Amino acid sequence: MKKVYVAGVGMTNFGKLNKLGRELALDASIQAINDAQIRPKDIDATYVSNAFGIGEGQIHVGPLINSSLGIPQVPSLTIESACSGSSAAFHEAYVALSSGIHNVALVVGYEKLTMNSTSENTRYFAMASDYWFEGVNGVTFPGLYALMATAHMKKYGTTEEMLGSVAIKNHRNGFYNPKAHFRKMIDMETYRNSAVVSYPLKLYDSCPFSDGAAALILVNEDFIQKNSELVQVLSSVRAGSMAALQDRDDFTGIPGARIAAEKAFKIAKLSPDDVSFAEVHDCFTIAEIMAIEDIGFFRKGEGGKAELEGLTQFDGKKPINPSGGLKAKGHPVSATGIAQIVEIYDQMLFRVDKNRQVQNPQIGLAHNVGTTGGSVSVNIFRRAK
Amino acid sequence: MKKVYVAGVGMTNFGKLNKLGRELALDASIQAINDAQIRPKDIDATYVSNAFGIGEGQIHVGPLINSSLGIPQVPSLTIESACSGSSAAFHEAYVALSSGIHNVALVVGYEKLTMNSTSENTRYFAMASDYWFEGVNGVTFPGLYALMATAHMKKYGTTEEMLGSVAIKNHRNGFYNPKAHFRKMIDMETYRNSAVVSYPLKLYDSCPFSDGAAALILVNEDFIQKNSELVQVLSSVRAGSMAALQDRDDFTGIPGARIAAEKAFKIAKLSPDDVSFAEVHDCFTIAEIMAIEDIGFFRKGEGGKAELEGLTQFDGKKPINPSGGLKAKGHPVSATGIAQIVEIYDQMLFRVDKNRQVQNPQIGLAHNVGTTGGSVSVNIFRRAK
Repeated sequence: MKKVYVAGVGMTNFGKLNKLGRELALDASIQAINDAQIRPKDIDATYVSNAFGIGEGQIHVGPLINSSLGIPQVPSLTIESACSGSSAAFHEAYVALSSGIHNVALVVGYEKLTMNSTSENTRYFAMASDYWFEGVNGVTFPGLYALMATAHMKKYGTTEEMLGSVAIKNHRNGFYNPKAHFRKMIDMETYRNSAVVSYPLKLYDSCPFSDGAAALILVNEDFIQKNSELVQVLSSVRAGSMAALQDRDDFTGIPGARIAAEKAFKIAKLSPDDVSFAEVHDCFTIAEIMAIEDIGFFRKGEGGKAELEGLTQFDGKKPINPSGGLKAKGHPVSATGIAQIVEIYDQMLFRVDKNRQVQNPQIGLAHNVGTTGGSVSVNIFRRAK
Repeated sequence: MKKVYVAGVGMTNFGKLNKLGRELALDASIQAINDAQIRPKDIDATYVSNAFGIGEGQIHVGPLINSSLGIPQVPSLTIESACSGSSAAFHEAYVALSSGIHNVALVVGYEKLTMNSTSENTRYFAMASDYWFEGVNGVTFPGLYALMATAHMKKYGTTEEMLGSVAIKNHRNGFYNPKAHFRKMIDMETYRNSAVVSYPLKLYDSCPFSDGAAALILVNEDFIQKNSELVQVLSSVRAGSMAALQDRDDFTGIPGARIAAEKAFKIAKLSPDDVSFAEVHDCFTIAEIMAIEDIGFFRKGEGGKAELEGLTQFDGKKPINPSGGLKAKGHPVSATGIAQIVEIYDQMLFRVDKNRQVQNPQIGLAHNVGTTGGSVSVNIFRRAK
């Protein structure tokens, strides 16, 4: 197995953007190529992630990107894995590079959603659940995560204030992220007074529908240039869970996340305590609380308390979502997994705003969830000393 | 690099089917699991291919399949690469198995299309082209392939009769394939009199919109059971071409197909003459003629003549599409690439109708094209002696 490194990253602003999805994907890709100081012709394969291109009228975007980059001969494909699509694409690139089949890969995730209405987008998203059992019966994602939240509240005494702490922290971090969808701080009163989406989840518990793209260049040890060995991929693991929530015994965590994290730590020969900071999948505030428990940063049932006590602040004991997370940075579905890795890379290169810069970003972890856990990716990164 | 084998295959009928896409995918998967004589829990990863699930209201089908198989923990993802999606999924599984990251993979492609009107499906398909330049200007796939056909006719003197020979041969083979969408033979007069879709391409030059699923179990040398080493994957290569036809110098062939075939032969240490038979991408009759030239079975410009002379018949010098091809077997987009491999496997195990059984199926090649060549896969297989 060859060593694999992130050599450069790129990301558009997240939010409501007046460009086509293919343009966003190309913008982020060019940024990543320039950041990595490679030439397009160095790229052996392009891994694209997108879920809802049908809504825009364009799928099969890899050949468009490669044609625009002047490398039409390079193979590409599009990967969908609900909200974890681009971390799945990252994993496929990692496998090809670690095995030496390719040496340099472009990985890019994008989504264009804001031209749709909220109800259209809610329906699109529901298509990634077990639609014929969940979606058609009216249980869309806010409802599914609300079921998880109430179960967590009942079993562990998790409170509305704990959920609110996640929202307030992530909005604060997003305020200092120039590419974030939402750049405004909120307080507990604003949080409490926001409209209920699906009890107990309110507007400020929920991530937005965003447009955006994120890209990175992945290289293996056979293609090492100046600076390209700064951030190493220690492990990249994917797992799944029972697709429909109704088929699970317990709603207070995500089985696939526990499996993926455990395996990722084993391969990286690390424990949760070794992780300096993490980007986790906070599509709803409860999701962040479950994530930090599933990964093993905090004991089961104690995630909410940790959030309330500030342990997950950017300068806390275990910084979580210094980017602002899906909650504030935004959630352009198939861009999110790569955007998490962009943040880890930028943190490790000390090039983010000092108000969200983690102090000693030695080991970073990215945790990306598709639906309620049907697909989960956990990737662990190390900064070269 | 570990050796990789096809250990078993499964396929639904192709045509208008009264099942959901997810059911078709599961049906084919269970067939493949039984054929390979493995247990679901042997599977390390599931690679799904689908392009138009949005139309049916269900994407992210991997977790549904795995949940139904009792292996919810297993990672899955969905791959789209236009009409070459499932050969792209096959390639991803091949990479993971040859590198030893996984030992056993389920690869399944499916599509559910017949609930849409022809115009809806034509528009869906066009979304895989360079839609904002081709599709929105009214050039859908029949038109794009018609441009390639007229260019080929002008440059090489390819005739309507040569195109017709492809259709007649593939309909004949499909007649003997119990799973084919069309099981009727046609003659040259029927072909000539069929309605023009886009000159020179007529109804009988064109493959249908089909429902269907095809699956296979891929294993590496670390997981060898009885019979599982019968069909070895010698090489699996993907490449691309300029996405839009307008950006190419020449319309008479597919650049990515030539690149992929050349590389696949090099890795397999074989030449086109070594291939016993092939399944190629005949979405339109002209596509088969270009394919057998691009792969190198026949010299450029001589593909049409070879078809007319019967060299590509199941008992000819170079049998092409003994399954009936996309033309007669049908074309459920993201099932097609795997369905080609299903045919190669069944031919190598001598379990197809004697009226289309290739005599000495030692080396088989599968050639699968996305759009007009934006994505191309070439996979080469060897029957164990």
